[in-house]
Amino acid sequence: MTTDTTAAIDAYLRQHVDRYVEELKMLCAQPSVSATGQGVEACADLVVDLLQKRGLTTRKVPYRGHPFIIGRLDGASDRTLMFYNHYDVQPPEPFDLWTSPPFEPTVRDGALYARGAADDKGEIIARLMAIDAALAANDGRLPCNLIFFLEGEEEIGSPHVADFVLEHRADLRCDAAIWEVGSIDPSGRPVSTLGARGILGVEITVETLGRDAHSGMAHLLPSAAWRLVRLLNQLKDDQERILIPGFYDEALPVSARDLALLDDQPDHEAVMRETYGLSAFTGGRTYRDAARAIFQPTCNIQGITTGYQGGGMKTVIPARASVKIDFRLVPGQRPDDIFDKLRRWLDTTGYADAELTRYGSMLPYKVDPDDPFVQMAARAAEEVHGLPAMLTPTAGGSSPMYAVGGPFNAPIVFAGVSYWDNRGHAPDEHVRLADLLNGARHVARILDRFGRAGDG
Amino acid sequence: MTTDTTAAIDAYLRQHVDRYVEELKMLCAQPSVSATGQGVEACADLVVDLLQKRGLTTRKVPYRGHPFIIGRLDGASDRTLMFYNHYDVQPPEPFDLWTSPPFEPTVRDGALYARGAADDKGEIIARLMAIDAALAANDGRLPCNLIFFLEGEEEIGSPHVADFVLEHRADLRCDAAIWEVGSIDPSGRPVSTLGARGILGVEITVETLGRDAHSGMAHLLPSAAWRLVRLLNQLKDDQERILIPGFYDEALPVSARDLALLDDQPDHEAVMRETYGLSAFTGGRTYRDAARAIFQPTCNIQGITTGYQGGGMKTVIPARASVKIDFRLVPGQRPDDIFDKLRRWLDTTGYADAELTRYGSMLPYKVDPDDPFVQMAARAAEEVHGLPAMLTPTAGGSSPMYAVGGPFNAPIVFAGVSYWDNRGHAPDEHVRLADLLNGARHVARILDRFGRAGDG
Repeated sequence: MTTDTTAAIDAYLRQHVDRYVEELKMLCAQPSVSATGQGVEACADLVVDLLQKRGLTTRKVPYRGHPFIIGRLDGASDRTLMFYNHYDVQPPEPFDLWTSPPFEPTVRDGALYARGAADDKGEIIARLMAIDAALAANDGRLPCNLIFFLEGEEEIGSPHVADFVLEHRADLRCDAAIWEVGSIDPSGRPVSTLGARGILGVEITVETLGRDAHSGMAHLLPSAAWRLVRLLNQLKDDQERILIPGFYDEALPVSARDLALLDDQPDHEAVMRETYGLSAFTGGRTYRDAARAIFQPTCNIQGITTGYQGGGMKTVIPARASVKIDFRLVPGQRPDDIFDKLRRWLDTTGYADAELTRYGSMLPYKVDPDDPFVQMAARAAEEVHGLPAMLTPTAGGSSPMYAVGGPFNAPIVFAGVSYWDNRGHAPDEHVRLADLLNGARHVARILDRFGRAGDG
Repeated sequence: MTTDTTAAIDAYLRQHVDRYVEELKMLCAQPSVSATGQGVEACADLVVDLLQKRGLTTRKVPYRGHPFIIGRLDGASDRTLMFYNHYDVQPPEPFDLWTSPPFEPTVRDGALYARGAADDKGEIIARLMAIDAALAANDGRLPCNLIFFLEGEEEIGSPHVADFVLEHRADLRCDAAIWEVGSIDPSGRPVSTLGARGILGVEITVETLGRDAHSGMAHLLPSAAWRLVRLLNQLKDDQERILIPGFYDEALPVSARDLALLDDQPDHEAVMRETYGLSAFTGGRTYRDAARAIFQPTCNIQGITTGYQGGGMKTVIPARASVKIDFRLVPGQRPDDIFDKLRRWLDTTGYADAELTRYGSMLPYKVDPDDPFVQMAARAAEEVHGLPAMLTPTAGGSSPMYAVGGPFNAPIVFAGVSYWDNRGHAPDEHVRLADLLNGARHVARILDRFGRAGDG
């Protein structure tokens, strides 16, 4: 049965691919820049229309920022698959570096060029292609329930998606999800990243004087700059261990399976050394140890602001000093808990006066690489791309995966149309039309197989 | 004899004070902004003319920046007194905060308002008044030789005066000097500051990456910000002790006399606490201990520049971090030696890659409070102002006193026309006409008595 439907899916997609290129052009011609708001509502309406055409019961849901979209289509089992995508795009500037204008989609050399061609409108169209193909191959009824969930704020950091999902649990409950992107690495292997670190962003400000003072009084008037240096020095030791009491208490240990998976990743040491002109890795670690530290939390200084920043000298004692920090968190750690522990640590180490400003936060997220859904999606990827899927145990950065995966304990996989050099966020963003087709073939396979016995 | 000449000096000055106010107006009407160069040469010519009128053999000496002026007048002994002054002024901006325009000298309520009215043109005129009066009281021949030495770059940090003096030793050799300023404190006591700390300004830059990187790689890619924090933390301990090996080796111990003098200064604790909103003094010291630390060197952070300085967050690992530092140095310490020790310390503690940029430096300078010249000037100040002179053992800041005092081992005193609130460097700078007269009386007494037996 699977083989039959797979052949039917591929045949359907090959036959109709030109129609979808037109649909993608139409979607890309509509700006939807979340940072400025340009075209966002109109684009949301377009997407609602595209989903309704496929028979999804679809609504645009206003929330605190740009609207969310929820489309539902019931299928033949009680299992539910979610597509998470976003209809917003990065700003198109600088315009002069685009070969063709960013909102005038243009096909050149087998690729469609436009802002959003890959990230994430190409991915949206690939999922619509998959729905159409799976419906056609299954006599008009999907083998599982489908939720197509989209947001319009991914490019501005998904500030509301976690709360939105929690408040709309009943509408969004799912058993597994396909993430907004799927990518091919330089060797042609499809990659699925099985997690992300969490993040807590804070700014710490200390003030020792009501105003800057002449540095001839440095023996008398305390410096905010030195106070901040000492505070920071107490925050992390020279082995990169974060010294806030209890910081590591909730961190779950990394599994031997994930460590092995990491060690199987391509060795990027030479590329890293060349790209960044490195003489050493963090903490003087070997490349292997540094790479493995992706399973550890980090405490990064984004920037320090204190005193005089201009040319030459200014003989001044800075009254104020501030540092922006991001903590990357591993599974088990929660930004709220870390924030509380940081505050408590400041209070008990003589820095009760330090001001803390909290910026965005995201929870960590982790999928078991041996989850049957992950394995099914990986096999499907190998079928489509002809090379074994690369399972990357976690990203070093953060993403809203937890927002979808966390509340439902749902495994998430990557599947779609991107490749390592499609210029996402940059001028000449594009999707290769062959990748559009293959991305749809991959998503359609997952949609076709999920819900059937033995396929996750 | 002294009493006779003193009475003659005072009578002369009281009689002619109006003429000098006109001379001061003329001098202040000529801009001489060293920072921009506006009017500097023209003002130098005016000053040369004013000195020549008194019979001083005067020449304008071009050097690396704005010209120096050396005037000489031989007297009745072989001892030589120097006046050190400057004919340049601070920029006048912001114009809209001046009650009358900065280069249109205006008398209001017994004071002359103009840029430079006190700092330093009022002081120059007071010295000319003193010369005229001392000549009149001594039958046209001063009791000592006089060198009137002026520079045109004091307001831009006196970058060349030290080298100039060394290269013109023969022309500038003196036995004692009167500094460019004399001031009255809020209680009406004349103040003489008997020294200044030296300074060495440096910028330290570390670079760990060829370019900024995504903070999701903080476990892998080393941060320049953290590297700088660790470097700084090794530079000074939490008791304010500077940890560069040998840093204190050349520092001379403070004398019991200077400590006692310091303890006799007015207690500024309440003023300091209020002005700067202090909750603590440097290093958690008591006020008295912090005040006494003026005899210790300091290591001040002027500013730190690294990473993101804007609003909100930017998830970036800074590739570069730099800190501007000034070391204030005490007698015995030399900026060149400290710079070398800093470089060596960096080289031997794992920071051989740290770039060092050297900014301005000045040597420390110290006068013995019991020097006969100092005591003579203090007695003269008390005569003029009616209150005992306050001898302040050292300034916390730096000044080119060493440039004049160092090569000739000459004691230096303060005497002149300023008071604590004459708005030097600010809008509505002014000199009180009574202070102009008293400043001249004080300088004339020193000029009259220096060189006579028993008067230093």
